[in-house]
Amino acid sequence: MTNRQIVVAELPKGQLAPENFTMTEVDMPVPAEGDVLLRVILMSIDAANRSWMQGATYRDAVKAGDAMPTYAICEVVESNSPRLAKGDIVAAEATWSDYVTVPAHKATKLPSVKTLSHLMSVFGIAGKTAYHGLMSIGQPQPGETVLVSAAAGSVGGYVGQIAKSLGCRVVGIAGGAEKCDWVVEHLGFDACIDYRADGMFKALRAACPEGVDVYFDNVGGTVLETALNLMNERGRIVCCGAISQYESTAPTGPRNLPGAIVVKRLRMEGFIVMDFARDDAKAIRAMQGMIERGQMKVTEDIVEGLENAPSALIGLLGGDNKGKRMVRVSADPS
Amino acid sequence: MTNRQIVVAELPKGQLAPENFTMTEVDMPVPAEGDVLLRVILMSIDAANRSWMQGATYRDAVKAGDAMPTYAICEVVESNSPRLAKGDIVAAEATWSDYVTVPAHKATKLPSVKTLSHLMSVFGIAGKTAYHGLMSIGQPQPGETVLVSAAAGSVGGYVGQIAKSLGCRVVGIAGGAEKCDWVVEHLGFDACIDYRADGMFKALRAACPEGVDVYFDNVGGTVLETALNLMNERGRIVCCGAISQYESTAPTGPRNLPGAIVVKRLRMEGFIVMDFARDDAKAIRAMQGMIERGQMKVTEDIVEGLENAPSALIGLLGGDNKGKRMVRVSADPS
Repeated sequence: MTNRQIVVAELPKGQLAPENFTMTEVDMPVPAEGDVLLRVILMSIDAANRSWMQGATYRDAVKAGDAMPTYAICEVVESNSPRLAKGDIVAAEATWSDYVTVPAHKATKLPSVKTLSHLMSVFGIAGKTAYHGLMSIGQPQPGETVLVSAAAGSVGGYVGQIAKSLGCRVVGIAGGAEKCDWVVEHLGFDACIDYRADGMFKALRAACPEGVDVYFDNVGGTVLETALNLMNERGRIVCCGAISQYESTAPTGPRNLPGAIVVKRLRMEGFIVMDFARDDAKAIRAMQGMIERGQMKVTEDIVEGLENAPSALIGLLGGDNKGKRMVRVSADPS
Repeated sequence: MTNRQIVVAELPKGQLAPENFTMTEVDMPVPAEGDVLLRVILMSIDAANRSWMQGATYRDAVKAGDAMPTYAICEVVESNSPRLAKGDIVAAEATWSDYVTVPAHKATKLPSVKTLSHLMSVFGIAGKTAYHGLMSIGQPQPGETVLVSAAAGSVGGYVGQIAKSLGCRVVGIAGGAEKCDWVVEHLGFDACIDYRADGMFKALRAACPEGVDVYFDNVGGTVLETALNLMNERGRIVCCGAISQYESTAPTGPRNLPGAIVVKRLRMEGFIVMDFARDDAKAIRAMQGMIERGQMKVTEDIVEGLENAPSALIGLLGGDNKGKRMVRVSADPS
């Protein structure tokens, strides 16, 4: 019995390409004392995978020859620890593989749910990031206008749907007409502006006739600069990410800052999802209610098959996903 | 009897120059029903004067042909309103003039104090801006490091002295060795870094060995970018002004933003002093106590003569003032 694994063949110089990866077959790993053997079910595909190849961040750099690390949902198939039993469903840092072993104390047992993928989308980091950032930092009020960049992405789609359920006017920003249509028609945003088209500022101003009270920023760069020009007095900018800057060799800051912050008395604040962990249960309860009332669609973009992980990541970096992207390596337990 | 007035001859394209102003003599204004005729005593000289020439902000833009507006302390010399009497001392929006008329309800009667100029410095907008911005937005804790730009300016000097009285480590940024020495020796800051000298970042890092918890930003631009690099997690940036940008024809934003905001979970917030008007009495009481206990020096920089208002403003923009700059147009009442 063998174990497939996707290894970084060579670190990318510029844009990530299929040639940077290679599939290998290795022996089935054997769990040591205290370890568990896991069958990988779902792997989270994130822009962060790419940034790990750039050098050390909050974790060690990924080097040539390494199997690509990934946040994964797995089933315990063998346990050498009293902490976990065969059949348990866990979240763990795995690699792009069919099977991995990890120390049992590094795997987190997950609650029993009908659809495992929901633990990686709406009830996972994406949904919790959207909920905590919008509610705790953005603090939208009914009738206010909420603007969201990367609106078709894993976080942005939930931000807009939550804001909509609160009675806000919700405007998205996304790349390409097809994604913008999907954001309006499928997710129910009031409008969505294509940042790749000409005249973004005019289009946004027309879509936000009463200005912007909350801007949920996933991208930074010129979109942030444009949003600053549209903010109302005492507006809030939720700083969640800056994807436009990650691969830039010449980062640019918003030229109207801090002027706009002073004149309009804006608040701009960053956060990471773990800061609000004590409110996770509340967030999940709230979003569960929205789903039940038909106010929220769970947006998932599941690519089938371990062998497609490289193209799933390359596509994500090019912006071709709608909703939370993941790769299904094996079936949910029946 | 005539009235001297300084008018904007032509709006500046870049740096403000004496040619942008012209002195005219006009007839003595006559107060209409409900108005008062005011003798201008002291005029506040602020970087904001320059920013009003850039376009509409929280007030209408100043245009060519306009007498330059100014916050002023004045004596009522004639009243056509029961609200105010001859001899009252008031604060009002005047213009760069010997005399002005204003509606009586737009003039605020001032308390009787020994030194009128204090109502324009420590107990005026400068002191209140420092107090409210630092306390309500910056929220410094004893032992934290507070960094203040334009530390020799009208607001920065009070910010540092208030923070010092709270038990913070206080580091200033100012232009030139002489001003930096004054900030440390006269105002009692722990250190002051010359932003015009080479190696500002290294010098600041050495002066803030435990990082920066609160940055009180009066300048924007590259100093803000540098401060962002030194901020500690959950640091607060008080956005009070952006003097480095007011005369710039090619404004630059901090290139590390919003990245630093996200990663360090910073809060960046703008304010204007009127937002906190209901706490003005508390601020003045607190600063009066600091003065009495020898914790605060009142810093004033008074230029004599209406005709010197243009050079007083041009000099302020070049950073040649120490403490709150004002122009004395006429004597305090005896």
